[in-house]
Formats: sequence, structure tokens, C-alpha cells
Amino acid sequence: QALPYIRCVGDSWPMTRERAYFEASALREHGRLCPDHVPEVYHFDRAMSLIGMRYIKPPHIILRKGLIAGVEYPLLAEHMADYMAKTLFFTSLLYNSTTEHKKQVARYCENVEMCRLTEQVVFSDPYMVSKYNRWNSPLLDKDAEAVREDDGLKLEIAELKSMFIERAQALIHGDLHTGSIMVTPDSTQVIDPEFAFYAPMGYDIGAFLGNLILAYFAQDGHADQANDRKAYKQWILKTIEESWNLFQQKFLGLWNKHKDGNGEAYLPAIYNNPELLSVVQKKYMTGLLHDSLGFGSAKMIRRIVGIAHVEDFDSIEDASKRASCERRALDCGKAILKGRRQFESIEQVIALVQSVTHD
Amino acid sequence: QALPYIRCVGDSWPMTRERAYFEASALREHGRLCPDHVPEVYHFDRAMSLIGMRYIKPPHIILRKGLIAGVEYPLLAEHMADYMAKTLFFTSLLYNSTTEHKKQVARYCENVEMCRLTEQVVFSDPYMVSKYNRWNSPLLDKDAEAVREDDGLKLEIAELKSMFIERAQALIHGDLHTGSIMVTPDSTQVIDPEFAFYAPMGYDIGAFLGNLILAYFAQDGHADQANDRKAYKQWILKTIEESWNLFQQKFLGLWNKHKDGNGEAYLPAIYNNPELLSVVQKKYMTGLLHDSLGFGSAKMIRRIVGIAHVEDFDSIEDASKRASCERRALDCGKAILKGRRQFESIEQVIALVQSVTHD
Repeated sequence: QALPYIRCVGDSWPMTRERAYFEASALREHGRLCPDHVPEVYHFDRAMSLIGMRYIKPPHIILRKGLIAGVEYPLLAEHMADYMAKTLFFTSLLYNSTTEHKKQVARYCENVEMCRLTEQVVFSDPYMVSKYNRWNSPLLDKDAEAVREDDGLKLEIAELKSMFIERAQALIHGDLHTGSIMVTPDSTQVIDPEFAFYAPMGYDIGAFLGNLILAYFAQDGHADQANDRKAYKQWILKTIEESWNLFQQKFLGLWNKHKDGNGEAYLPAIYNNPELLSVVQKKYMTGLLHDSLGFGSAKMIRRIVGIAHVEDFDSIEDASKRASCERRALDCGKAILKGRRQFESIEQVIALVQSVTHD
Repeated sequence: QALPYIRCVGDSWPMTRERAYFEASALREHGRLCPDHVPEVYHFDRAMSLIGMRYIKPPHIILRKGLIAGVEYPLLAEHMADYMAKTLFFTSLLYNSTTEHKKQVARYCENVEMCRLTEQVVFSDPYMVSKYNRWNSPLLDKDAEAVREDDGLKLEIAELKSMFIERAQALIHGDLHTGSIMVTPDSTQVIDPEFAFYAPMGYDIGAFLGNLILAYFAQDGHADQANDRKAYKQWILKTIEESWNLFQQKFLGLWNKHKDGNGEAYLPAIYNNPELLSVVQKKYMTGLLHDSLGFGSAKMIRRIVGIAHVEDFDSIEDASKRASCERRALDCGKAILKGRRQFESIEQVIALVQSVTHD
């Protein structure tokens, strides 16, 4: 049941209960497209903002907690690639007509309060003085200040912010971090799409990959004599790599399967030449990688110097060790945000992540 | 009064009468923002699809007819720059909050039939075999075929088409060619915004500039012993240059005036540094120039090989002379579409236009 304020802040920050309506709508729509990874909605009561949905049973846990505990999920990349490919492809103009698309866009425009919340906490507050910002102070005071004074970052974040608000590319989850995913070694279930609306696909992909990168940088803070976490860090990197590569493979698979359908973006009468289609797809996927890296790095940065932090870092007790992990994640996020257009593959991104060493 | 079909095609192509509702809405909204260049709506009857609006008296004529006749309009660039700057700036996120923006976006999403018509005739048909296409046959048969087989063009037009449908940047007129503008030497009145919805600003700017470039290339077909049209061609080029440069100046003037307002895109708390704001604005305007050139050249191309042609060329009686003019316009459009990201100023575009010589 949605309460009339933001749960993690309290009743000092009121929030529309109507978000439950969009959460239920998105659960149903994404569930129809990808039933394996979205719980069923049994009942929705709009007046009560109440969603009755499948109970995701133990031993499912929140993915973020599994990542902190150092648990490997061998099917995670495969499952998330499947979820992202299906939910994003089938709600885009690659599959739909403009008429269907605009109808849905108009409907989700009403989830504007959630859109505004994202704008503020992801694209605005971290780059200005705001009472909501917090960070590992005083250790990261200089780092937070550097973000607020970095004109290069501000130039990039402005472009992403406008793209986020203006560009209705697909029905995105809108908050696809590792806290919105419940897992066992065999199962992956995506929950909490209360921020759903039509926005750039890269916002979802970036949220997932960016939060995996945060988990990677947090590992050194969780290492101990029993487990140095080195192998686990490699598993996270492999999961990032596979998530993107499998997503790309599945997404292009859907595109090729439906290329003669009703999708408005690439009419078969024009793009019926296999060589041209392949060039078009390469350009599309490179653009999508750059968008994903932009949004993903923005989400990394905001988790270090903005209002909402991640348990990956918060659970590191030693403040100095935590600051060291956070600083590397922040530096990595800044480098990706500024340099995202240089990357042509996820492997190049992973090489950058590995190159960010201890300070 | 809107009829239930496309006027220039006839009742074989049905069209929603609801376009009159969006035309009246856009006339009112743009008229509020720029009363000097938009006629007042006195009455709108939705059931009858009937708009009662100010009669634009003689000696006002359609700008396109003036351009064919070789009439100079010394205030045209100034007036159109004023119209475009005001209507686009004040309906964008540079001025509005996300809440207001999304509300309007949702409303105009319903004008989807007109959006689909544009998609088809501007972004699709010219690049495929379509019964609606026509051209100056047989003289331009090879040219029309070359467009349908040009993978480079198809790659670019796909990007523009998706941007056109997905990106709700501002409330655009949607059909801002020289046939939608009525003029005298002292007055400029913009009419017929039945294609209005939230889309990229560059679509309007490009429509206007692209149609001026078409008028430029048509002049050689209207030259005679009494008037070689050389001076008039220079006036058109000067008008193109001034239209963009004055637009840019006025648009940035509005931005600077309202930079501490409620616009969501660039919050004053982040972009309060004059040096940063200047870099941000330069990037924004360069992007807008590239968008305008992309959409403008797409509109040039479609007027040569698509369904709807322009009187500028159609009024050239000698088919061979007409083909020569059209071919140069087409070649120019193709060069701009493919190379638009290389241009940093409108002067560079004009140099390209001048470099396209007789075949």
C-alpha cells in the first residue's frame, strides 16, 4: 500500500499515493511481456492505493543484500537481460505503432510527481548545495564539493536530464537498482516500478549496471581474512559484461524477429536490406550503450553525494575504508559520465572500472 | 472548417476533423506568446470543427507566392525569429516546470493522426516505393531511385524520425513552411498549426529554413530577361542567415532573462556561473542547429520526391529547367542531411547552398 509520503524520508516529504496506480499498471504491462521475472498483480484498489500481488517467497532476498553478502547468482545476467530486452523492446517504436505509443505515453505522463522526484535527486541536487544531500563527511567533503564545482559534469548531466524528461522511448521501470530485484540462484523477480513512465531505455539499463559497479567498489570494504572478495569482484564484472552483451543479443533477436511487423521506427519497406539493417542496429545499440553509461554513472554519483545512499557502502563500518570505496566509485562514475561516448563495448567500460585503483 | 479528409489529396485519404481542435489550441497558445505574428481565435466549435479567427486582410499574401514573385520582405527574418524564439522557448523546459510540460505533452499526444501523417510523408515514403510519391518524371527518375537506395540517408532519416516521435521538446507549429505564413512588407502572420504537438524545436526551424532554401533553388527557374533573380537569391540567403542568427539571439535573450525562473532544464542553483551558462548555451544552440538542418533537409527532400510538392518548383513551366532546379535542391538537401553535424554556423550552411551549382 502506497503511503502519502516518501518511505525513506518520512512524512516531511509528501508523495502522491497515485504512484501505486502506475506501479500496478507497469507490473501488469511488464508482467505480460516478461512473466518469468515480474510478479503477478492479483488485485489493485485505486482508492486505497493498494496492490495485491504474488508473494515472492523465501529464500528470495533483495539482490543488493546478496551482493553485500558475496553470493553469486549464475543466472542473474541472463534473467535481467531477458527482462530488459522484453520490457524495453515491446514498449518501444521498434515494435509499436505511433498511435499505440502516444496513447501510452500520454497515460504515463500523469506519473509526473515521480518523474520530478527523480529529476531532483538524480539530476539536480548532487550538483548543487541542497539540504537533502549527504555524504561520508568529513572524509568526502572535498569530493562532494568537487562534484558541485565540476562544469564538465554539469554540462553532461544537463543533457541527460532533458533527455530523461523529453524522450519517450519505452515504458521503463524507472528505478531498476539492485534493491528493486529479488533473487535466488534460480530466480530473478523485478519489483517496485512505481517510477514507471515513457523515458529513455538507457535509464533502466544504466540503473542496473551502475548499481552493479557500486557493488563492485563496495567489495573491498566487505573483504576480510576469510574472504578477500577478489573472486567475487571478478564475478560482478563478468555479470556486468554478460548483462549488457546478453541484453544486446536478446534485444537484437527480438528486433530481427519482429522486423516485418508494425514497429513505426524502421519500416521493412525501407530497412529491408540486411546490410543496412545491421548498420542501423549497430548505431542504435551504440547510442543505447552511451545513454546507459550516462544514466548509470549519474546514478552512481548520486548514491555517493545525494540524498539516498546504498547499503553496499553504508554497511561498511570503518568510515575511512568506506570513504575509500566510495571515492573510487565516485571517480569512476565521473569518468564514465564525461567519457561515455568513447566506449564502443562493455569490455572497454570494465577495463575502466578495473583501472580505478586505491587512492 | 476542417473536413474529414486531406484537402490536397481529396476524400480518398480520410483525416480526423479533430485536427481543428489542436489547430485552435495551438493558435491560442502561440498567439498568447507571440500576438504580433499569430491571428486571434474568436471562436472555436469543436462539434463543427470550426475555427472563427481574425481575417488576415489583403495585401497579405502567402509567403511562398511572394517568394515566387521575387518580392523582398525586409522584416521577415526579424518577425519569424521572434515567432520561433517565443513559441519554442516558452513551451520548453527552459521556461516551464516538468509538471506543466508533461500535462501539455499528454494533451497534444492526442493529435497523433497528424503526427502519423508527417511520419509517413516526410520520414518514410520518400525513402521507399510508395504509390503516393511523385516527382518530375522521367527527368528525375534516377534521382528518386537514388534516394530510395541511399543507405547513408536512410540511417540519418531513421534517427530523425525517432527523435520526431519520441522527443517532446516544445509545442511546435508542426508545418512551418512558407505556405503557412502570410506576409506584407510590414507584417508576418503564421497560420495553420493543425500539426501542432510537442516535438523537437528543430522541426519548425528546419521547415522554415528548408523552404527558404527550396525557394532559393527555384529562382533560376523564374529568372527571365527582365530579372535574372541574382539579387533576389542573395536576399533569400541573407534572410536565411538572419533568421537563424536573430532566432539564436532572441532565444538566448529569453533564456538569459528567465534563467532564474521555474524552467526545469537548467536550475539557477547549478547553472548560476556565467561562464558555464555560456558553454551550456553554446552546446544547446549547436545541437539545435544540427536538429534544424536535419529536419529542414528532410523536408527539402520530401518536397522533390514525395507526395506534396511546392509551388516554387511546380510553377516553373519548362520541365527540364524545373528538373535542374529540383535536382540541385535535392542534392543540397542530401548533403545537409548527411553532413549536418559538421556545421557550426548558418554561414557555413549558406556556403554549402551556394556551392551547389548547375549540373
